Amino acid sequence: MTGGAAGGSGDRFALYDLFAAYGALIDAAEFDAWLALFAATCTYHIVPRENYERGLPAGLVYCDSRAMLEDRIRALREANKYNIHTDRHLIGLPHLTGEEGDATLVETSFAVYQTDQEGETRLFATGLYRDRIVVEAGRLKFRDKLVLLDTFAVPSLLATPL
Amino acid sequence: MTGGAAGGSGDRFALYDLFAAYGALIDAAEFDAWLALFAATCTYHIVPRENYERGLPAGLVYCDSRAMLEDRIRALREANKYNIHTDRHLIGLPHLTGEEGDATLVETSFAVYQTDQEGETRLFATGLYRDRIVVEAGRLKFRDKLVLLDTFAVPSLLATPL
Amino acid sequence: MTGGAAGGSGDRFALYDLFAAYGALIDAAEFDAWLALFAATCTYHIVPRENYERGLPAGLVYCDSRAMLEDRIRALREANKYNIHTDRHLIGLPHLTGEEGDATLVETSFAVYQTDQEGETRLFATGLYRDRIVVEAGRLKFRDKLVLLDTFAVPSLLATPL
Repeated sequence: MTGGAAGGSGDRFALYDLFAAYGALIDAAEFDAWLALFAATCTYHIVPRENYERGLPAGLVYCDSRAMLEDRIRALREANKYNIHTDRHLIGLPHLTGEEGDATLVETSFAVYQTDQEGETRLFATGLYRDRIVVEAGRLKFRDKLVLLDTFAVPSLLATPL
Repeated sequence: MTGGAAGGSGDRFALYDLFAAYGALIDAAEFDAWLALFAATCTYHIVPRENYERGLPAGLVYCDSRAMLEDRIRALREANKYNIHTDRHLIGLPHLTGEEGDATLVETSFAVYQTDQEGETRLFATGLYRDRIVVEAGRLKFRDKLVLLDTFAVPSLLATPL
Repeated sequence: MTGGAAGGSGDRFALYDLFAAYGALIDAAEFDAWLALFAATCTYHIVPRENYERGLPAGLVYCDSRAMLEDRIRALREANKYNIHTDRHLIGLPHLTGEEGDATLVETSFAVYQTDQEGETRLFATGLYRDRIVVEAGRLKFRDKLVLLDTFAVPSLLATPL
């Protein structure tokens, strides 16, 4: 990875920081700061891996613009008043898979755990982030984020972003 | 992060190594080497996230000095003679959140799995390390480690540090 | 880590990339690319931690050469036609533990989740990779990979490499 959005050593750390912040901000329910990790023009999709591989369009979340993503987050916050839980993201080392124009292509494994009000912690979902990452105003941002879920059977998906 | 305990690129790797060693040494039950990752003056607290956010003082483990932490570890070793299990830490990428005096503030997600004598592996706990990290004798050390557990319902907590 | 296979900053990123690719390629079922992460002369063993610590030879997978590993992968592919599931690796930060000749010794925690055809995702196994990593034709490769499983009770182990 010598060109693209994440050349040099500082840029590589910036890439790692982007993912560390991504998970941390969801888990802390700091959704404005989380939104700031996305580019001004961005997409955010959650699709079960099986549907994606078969070319089925059915996504669980389908935000084709930043405005849609912001709307979605507003709705989640409202829903969360009634569905109290906390999230915990475990995110693997980013896997750089190539460049596409000015974007760096990155794939990253994740697991999300949820803890309910009774204090029970459960595995909620595992999957793969498939991202196009760009530099915007000197900082790395997600331009296109595709969340490929390992399962099509995710309960109560609306609760938070993944 | 240009100042503080983890400036430069080598220091960043040292930070990553500190966390890699932290989990590995617990999992290998090498508690003397694990203690050596803490500063001469240090604290180590385990607190359920909910208590912490409500400002409740009730912690599960509360070591306000290195002597207390060493005592605690001695007690755990004794207890472990009767509670045989093995740990496995999965620790995310450290999230640098700021500087405070000579300390770097770092937040890091973790999951701990335990395997019992019947060979069953279960998720034991997830949570967030909130650390103040300093340089001591040229090496990064934990000065204050706060283990925020996602749940207040942790069984058999005494078994090992987290 | 100043000598060995992973000195300098670029080499450290190469080490991280090696592990990111390792998990990603299994999860994507790209086994030829996965095999290319191993040195021409290599070993690959899967052993329950308990057996290993007691010096028992009984391994679950025991490939003492690259030819054996390639055979094994061929067999797994055949078996996978009838045992459909997907894997998801979460791999921690590599822990550099020393040098041995031209090899860097690295220990790395992992968790593997599997999702079955009903869409249920379960923790499959946790453990520790204990690797000897070398440079071959300018790239980092696994020369000896020991997969220490936390449990001796792994169901349907044949399904994929770990």
